[in-house]
Amino acid sequence: MFKELDPILHAQLRLAVVSLLIGVKEAEFTFIKEKTNATAGNLSVQIQKLKEAGYIEVTKQFVNNYPQTTCKITQQGIVAFEKYVAALQQYLNVSESQK
Amino acid sequence: MFKELDPILHAQLRLAVVSLLIGVKEAEFTFIKEKTNATAGNLSVQIQKLKEAGYIEVTKQFVNNYPQTTCKITQQGIVAFEKYVAALQQYLNVSESQK
Repeated sequence: MFKELDPILHAQLRLAVVSLLIGVKEAEFTFIKEKTNATAGNLSVQIQKLKEAGYIEVTKQFVNNYPQTTCKITQQGIVAFEKYVAALQQYLNVSESQK
Repeated sequence: MFKELDPILHAQLRLAVVSLLIGVKEAEFTFIKEKTNATAGNLSVQIQKLKEAGYIEVTKQFVNNYPQTTCKITQQGIVAFEKYVAALQQYLNVSESQK
């Protein structure tokens, strides 16, 4: 039987954001936008969903009069990502899981 | 930059079906239903989408007066799956792609 894949993470842009944040721990909105090639609108929506799930923390502050949004992975986000990767392996490692 | 993930495959049930068929080459509808724990209705819809994408072939025949639907992976399906797995690795292998 196939394991359930976390629907919060099994969406391309949200997965990209979490994958990115796992690697760098925290990053600015503009950096994430550049790396994921997403529109600001779509990225904002997906970041909000990740925040609501408790997978990331979002901090907004002004730096030199410019608003800056910083995203940081949470422990819950790390655990969810690891669980997701483990579940997904079952779908990808065909030779091990199916043969 | 993150690679695009094939939306046909980046859906849990369709991915499970293709993953299963990659392993066994061809399988009956009832076997796939059991292995994926999907409803017949949802599975029918997703199988139709995979067929339309050219990733699987679907054969319907009568065996002992019972209708039997058999699904088989196509070469195009195998290539798409391999490409999807390769693209997805970038999202999963954080240490390699991001650090």
